[in-house]
Amino acid sequence: MTLKAILVIADGMADRPIKELGLKTPLEAAVKPNLDHIAKNAVCGIMDPIAPGVPPGSDTATLALLGYDPSKVYSGRGALEAEGSGVEVLPGDVAFRCNFATVDDDLVVLDRRAGRIANEDATKLAASLGRIRLQPFLKAKFQFKNTIQHRAMLVIRGPKLSSAVSDSDPETTGKKALEVKPLDTTVEAKRTAQIVNMLLHSFHETLSKHPVNEMRAKKKLPVANMILVRGAGNIPRIPTLQERYDIRPACVAAVSLIKGVSKVAGMDLISVKGATGTIQTDYLAKAKAVVQSLKKHDFVLLHVKATDVASHDGNFKLKVEVIEKIDSMLGYILSKTDPDSTIIAFTADHTTSSATRNHEGDPVPVIIMGPGVRNDDVADFDERACAKGGLNRIRGLDLMPTLMGLMGKTKKFGS
Amino acid sequence: MTLKAILVIADGMADRPIKELGLKTPLEAAVKPNLDHIAKNAVCGIMDPIAPGVPPGSDTATLALLGYDPSKVYSGRGALEAEGSGVEVLPGDVAFRCNFATVDDDLVVLDRRAGRIANEDATKLAASLGRIRLQPFLKAKFQFKNTIQHRAMLVIRGPKLSSAVSDSDPETTGKKALEVKPLDTTVEAKRTAQIVNMLLHSFHETLSKHPVNEMRAKKKLPVANMILVRGAGNIPRIPTLQERYDIRPACVAAVSLIKGVSKVAGMDLISVKGATGTIQTDYLAKAKAVVQSLKKHDFVLLHVKATDVASHDGNFKLKVEVIEKIDSMLGYILSKTDPDSTIIAFTADHTTSSATRNHEGDPVPVIIMGPGVRNDDVADFDERACAKGGLNRIRGLDLMPTLMGLMGKTKKFGS
Repeated sequence: MTLKAILVIADGMADRPIKELGLKTPLEAAVKPNLDHIAKNAVCGIMDPIAPGVPPGSDTATLALLGYDPSKVYSGRGALEAEGSGVEVLPGDVAFRCNFATVDDDLVVLDRRAGRIANEDATKLAASLGRIRLQPFLKAKFQFKNTIQHRAMLVIRGPKLSSAVSDSDPETTGKKALEVKPLDTTVEAKRTAQIVNMLLHSFHETLSKHPVNEMRAKKKLPVANMILVRGAGNIPRIPTLQERYDIRPACVAAVSLIKGVSKVAGMDLISVKGATGTIQTDYLAKAKAVVQSLKKHDFVLLHVKATDVASHDGNFKLKVEVIEKIDSMLGYILSKTDPDSTIIAFTADHTTSSATRNHEGDPVPVIIMGPGVRNDDVADFDERACAKGGLNRIRGLDLMPTLMGLMGKTKKFGS
Repeated sequence: MTLKAILVIADGMADRPIKELGLKTPLEAAVKPNLDHIAKNAVCGIMDPIAPGVPPGSDTATLALLGYDPSKVYSGRGALEAEGSGVEVLPGDVAFRCNFATVDDDLVVLDRRAGRIANEDATKLAASLGRIRLQPFLKAKFQFKNTIQHRAMLVIRGPKLSSAVSDSDPETTGKKALEVKPLDTTVEAKRTAQIVNMLLHSFHETLSKHPVNEMRAKKKLPVANMILVRGAGNIPRIPTLQERYDIRPACVAAVSLIKGVSKVAGMDLISVKGATGTIQTDYLAKAKAVVQSLKKHDFVLLHVKATDVASHDGNFKLKVEVIEKIDSMLGYILSKTDPDSTIIAFTADHTTSSATRNHEGDPVPVIIMGPGVRNDDVADFDERACAKGGLNRIRGLDLMPTLMGLMGKTKKFGS
C-alpha cells in the first residue's frame, strides 16, 4: 500500500509554563481532543529544531524540519522570502528584503515604513520602479516587488554577484540611509554593492517626483521616497525533496517565507483562499486544501502562523484559542484521511515564549502517528507529556528521515 | 577486578508492531525470561545504529557498533566479506563480491547463479581460475575464492588500484554482462577496470571449456561459464580495538561479512562447529564458545544472523521462535559468567521489518548489565519498553565507548 504523510507545523506553538495559566503552557491549558487522540496513537518525543538552547528563526527551523542542514545551506532570509512572495529567485541571484521609507533631503530616515503605506500606493510606486533600467555596462537586471504595505523584495540577477554586502537600512529613524558596502574583498561583493547603490539612487530619484508621493504630501501622509534594503541572500542550492526521497510534495502555507523554503525544496505551493498567515486565517480551508492535495501528492506540509503571532504579542490566552482552532483543523483532517495509509506528524518549528515574546531555544513536542509506528503510552500532546515518549529527544534534522523511513523512502547506507 | 564484556548482536531483531501479533513486535510477543532478567538489571535505551530514519546495512551498522564511523571508513561490502571468508585483503587491495553465472554466446546473462551451482563444482572451477596468471605488464596479482554455492570473492593486489570501478553484474537476467568501467578520471580507476576486464575475459575462456561445465551441460545443468563482479571495495584502514582500547577482543560469528568486519577491527575469530548463520544454527555451541573464549579474551562479540533471516522472509512467527532460542542462549551465558565481573550488552544491528521485509531506519533496543551500571526500572527487553530506559536514545557510535567506559578502557579527554 502506498503511504502518504502530512506534516503539520504550528509556528512558535511550544511555550514555557505561564504563571497566569497556573504554570501550564498554552498547549497544556488548551482543550485539544484531536491532538491528544493523535498523541495517544503516536510515537511522541521532544525535538531541538536546531540544537538545545539555540533559538531558531522560522527560516532555519523549517529548513531543518524538511531535512536540510541550515548551517550548510542557509544564506539569509531575503532570497527565501522573495521566492515565496512570487518573485523568481535563481541560484546566483542576490535578494534583499526592502522597506518603503521616508527620508529628508539629507537622506535621514524619518519613518522606516513610510506610514505603513497602503498596498495600493506601494503597488503604483513599485510599478514605476520596475520600469527603471540599469545601465548596460553593469550587466545586471533586477526585479522589484511590493508585498504587504511597506514591505517589498528586490532581486538582482547577473554574472558575478555576491550576497556579502551590507544593509542600507539603518534599522532606526534619525540616521541616514546607509551606503551598501562590500563585506569581503571579492570583485563580486564590490560589484554587487555598486549595482545596489546605483539602483537605490535611481529609486530615490523616481520616488521623489512620483505623483503618488505628491498626493501623499498633500494628504500630509509620509512620502515613500526611499527604498531601504537588508538581509542580502542567495537561494540555497539544495536537492529537492523529489530528488532526495522520490516523493511528490506540496505545501499549504500563507507566509511568504515558508512558501519560499517549500518552493526551494521543490514542493508544489497550494493556494488557499482565506489563508492569511494571521490569527483570522481560515483554518478549515487549509485543512480542506491538505486533504484535497493528498490526491495528487504523497507528502503535504501544512503550516500555521497564528500561534507565533499570538506569542509575539504576549497574548497567551489568544494562543490557547488558536491551539484549539488548530485542534479542530486536525479533527477535519483525521476525519478525511485513512489511518491505514496516512502518516500524520505534528510539531512546532520552535518555542516562542509568551513571556519573553521571543523565539527560544527550548525543545518542541513532536508526535508521529501512522502505520508501523511504535506508539507509546503518552496520551497528551504538550511539551512535558511528549518528553516521556518513545521518540525520546531528536533533532530537527532527524524528523524528515524519520518520516521518510516510515514511508519507505530512505535509502539504505551499506548493504 | 578485571572486567570482561560480552556484546551480543542479534541481526535485524528489532521490528515494528505487527497486526497478526496483536500489534506487538516479535520481541514483545516472545517469551524471553533471560533477556528480561538482563533488562531488569540493566540500563536500557534505544539506539540509532547510524542515524534516525537511515536504514543501515549490516556492514555499516556493525562498524558503527564497534565504534568505527562508517561515513568515514566504509568503502563497500566486498572487501569486508572477502576478509571474513578467509581471503586475505590488505589495504590497497580491491575486492569484489562475485557470482558464478550462466551466459549465452553473446554474454547475455541467462542465470545469475548458474543454477545455484553446488559447492563441489564451484570449488573445482575456482581452482582452475586461481591458476590463471595476469600478464606481467599489468603488475597485479589476484585471488579468487568460492564461498557458498555460486558466491565467490575476487581480490586484486598491486600498485595503483582503485575501488572506483563499476560492476560487471547487470543484476538481472536477459542483459549482457557489463564491461567494468572507471567511475572517476584517475589513472588508478582506469587501470583497475582494465585489469578486471582482462581477468573476467580469461575467466570466461577458462570456464567455457572446463570439464566441470561439460559435465554440467550433459546433465542439463546451467553451465557456470562467467564470473560477475560487483561492489568493489577496499579494506578500511582503521585502528584495531586493541590499539584503541587496549583490550583482547574476539568474535563468535558465522557470517563472512561480520567475520570480516571483526577481523579488520583486530578481533580473534572463534570458529564454532554448527554455527551456520542460518535459522538452524547451533545457538548453544555459540554460547559455549563465548564462555570459553572469555578465558583468553576480555571482549567478545557474539553475532546471530537468524533473526534477520526470518525477517527477510516475512516470517514473524519464526522470528519469535528464534528470539526465544537466543533467549535460551543468553540463559546459558548468564549461568556460566560471573555477574560481578562481566558486562553483558544485548542489541540489534538494525530493525528489519517483517512487514516490509527490509532493513528500516527505526531505532533498536539496547540493554547493558554489569558492575557499575546505573540500572533503571525497565524490566522488559523490547523496542518500546527500552525507549523508557536510562540510556535514553544513543547512536550506534556511542555504544562501544559506553561499554569501554564501564570496563575502564576509555581515555580521559582533558585533565
